[in-house]
Amino acid sequence: TTTQIIQRHSVSHAGSHTAPHSGSHGHGGSHSSSGGSTLLGYIGIDTIIEQMRKKTMKTGFDFNIMVVGHSGLGKSTLVNTLFKSQVSRRSAGWARDEKIPKTVEIKAVSHVIEEGGVKMKLTVVDTPGFGDQINNDNCWEPISKYINEQYEKFLKEEVNITRKKRIPDTRVHCCLYFISPTGHSLRQLDTEFMKRLSHSVNIIPVIAKADTLTIEERQEFKQRVRKELEMSGIEFYPQKEFDDDMEDKSDNDKIREAMPFAVVGSDKEYQVNGKRVLGRKTAWGIVEVENPNHCEFAQLRDFLIRSHLQDLKEVTHNIHYETYRAKRLNENGGLHPISSAETQESNL
Amino acid sequence: TTTQIIQRHSVSHAGSHTAPHSGSHGHGGSHSSSGGSTLLGYIGIDTIIEQMRKKTMKTGFDFNIMVVGHSGLGKSTLVNTLFKSQVSRRSAGWARDEKIPKTVEIKAVSHVIEEGGVKMKLTVVDTPGFGDQINNDNCWEPISKYINEQYEKFLKEEVNITRKKRIPDTRVHCCLYFISPTGHSLRQLDTEFMKRLSHSVNIIPVIAKADTLTIEERQEFKQRVRKELEMSGIEFYPQKEFDDDMEDKSDNDKIREAMPFAVVGSDKEYQVNGKRVLGRKTAWGIVEVENPNHCEFAQLRDFLIRSHLQDLKEVTHNIHYETYRAKRLNENGGLHPISSAETQESNL
Repeated sequence: TTTQIIQRHSVSHAGSHTAPHSGSHGHGGSHSSSGGSTLLGYIGIDTIIEQMRKKTMKTGFDFNIMVVGHSGLGKSTLVNTLFKSQVSRRSAGWARDEKIPKTVEIKAVSHVIEEGGVKMKLTVVDTPGFGDQINNDNCWEPISKYINEQYEKFLKEEVNITRKKRIPDTRVHCCLYFISPTGHSLRQLDTEFMKRLSHSVNIIPVIAKADTLTIEERQEFKQRVRKELEMSGIEFYPQKEFDDDMEDKSDNDKIREAMPFAVVGSDKEYQVNGKRVLGRKTAWGIVEVENPNHCEFAQLRDFLIRSHLQDLKEVTHNIHYETYRAKRLNENGGLHPISSAETQESNL
Repeated sequence: TTTQIIQRHSVSHAGSHTAPHSGSHGHGGSHSSSGGSTLLGYIGIDTIIEQMRKKTMKTGFDFNIMVVGHSGLGKSTLVNTLFKSQVSRRSAGWARDEKIPKTVEIKAVSHVIEEGGVKMKLTVVDTPGFGDQINNDNCWEPISKYINEQYEKFLKEEVNITRKKRIPDTRVHCCLYFISPTGHSLRQLDTEFMKRLSHSVNIIPVIAKADTLTIEERQEFKQRVRKELEMSGIEFYPQKEFDDDMEDKSDNDKIREAMPFAVVGSDKEYQVNGKRVLGRKTAWGIVEVENPNHCEFAQLRDFLIRSHLQDLKEVTHNIHYETYRAKRLNENGGLHPISSAETQESNL
């Protein structure tokens, strides 16, 4: 068996082929008939994109987002604003006036949202009780445990002898960490949490309830937080080391320099200049949450959903999950494939 | 940890959003501000398609096609015609007049072809010597062995503790089986090969050199071949059992009813009515290979490249590879994950 690799560049033709099934793609005259390496006409390699689109439209995809931060920072409202739906735990039936739990709890709620024909199964993982205790020692532990349990679940499915065609993905693709808009600095718990978790999940820090900050305060606070994160050696998402190429690096540098985004959420609509907008009405004016002059919600939403959602999933799979898997297999002397007849628990 | 599944339909908005980064997607007036489950505005879920497109444009993809059939059936010319390039083994330096080998050999040649910005690493696997011996007993064995070796390679990579971000894919996604245009029936070797291999690889049977058949002969021969395949219980690609839904079934039924495609290949160009076409010039006219009135090459190309290429890859991964993996893990009492320090061979 010989494999000869002959790197060849482009049998590419000018113009995009929007009608790949039409038969007439001849580009007469420009090719010779005598043994060149390229023959005339369109092949259809680029139709793979359309074929993949069709498959994604059929299957949909999973996206799991976790929100962390002490109570009262508007976590539920912000995810509702991001996904333009009542997707948070509270909206899904939990009472607004429920008591703050005595320990950190993990509550996951799933919805299917469809837009433009694409179905997303969104799971919002809430962490009530985080940072709300007198003594918050180790309050990251239940969170870390949950994250690892999802990796473990995925790993178990992956080593099964009889596998599902698509392994259900409950892994946390993104952890939104809510920083209190104190105008001062990060709190110890913030740094501690991000330090401990940043190597097992994609952390995106945001400054919550940013409408309490003036423009100057916001800029100063953002700068201070960035500096503190850097001093603590915290690598938030998008991590520099995972930039794929120069284009990636340049795009991500801009985002990193603008982070953490100072955001305001709202699920109330108001009429402003004849247009309905999501906002917060005060005696001195309306904060329009999607107006980039008012806060950085739109930047966060564009980044998180419209440009980096697929990448969040891929970094989770290729980096965080792989790290967990390698550690797990090394410490255990290897995980053995499980036939569906055995119970899964007994083998681990 | 509770997971509440609330199936919800569509926060979908009319119209396609071609400029996902523009901020103004308000659909004023149609939403109420009081606690409905849907808030106004565009989320951006469907931008996942564009995000996936960008990733595919960067990484490219692998496609591996095998050609099987006795010598003289135009296998090399047909793959060259399919991919509009000299991608066959012969074009890549093997002499045209090399001797037919005494046993079946497996020769793989790879090229990178780019079209519309999408890079495909195409590997053409040729099987010289197949069906060319006096005694062709077991001549499918080296082919079956090669196919399984690629699954084994992939499996070894997959169970490694330290894995590559993308496992190089050498698995055969498609096996084009060339039927001799006898006008009579399939030969025993044809049925035997397809019977033995159809459960480990996607087989697409084609009637080679179809320019030797009149229209009536072609129709009759195709019908006879289809009947014989059915009688022998041979499931060629696209297999009925893997149709995903009714739409799939209806599309694939049409294809199955038209198979095996009667094809003609050519890497020579001629001028016909002021247009340059790929064809074969005879004393009585030019066979235009891409003209659907002349032969079924265009149907095969549309099916293989423009509509089912991604599916060929997925069926290979989800069905054939999974079948191999399950069998392998069952017979072996499990394959143990290998750390990169150990040699791969010693562990299997």
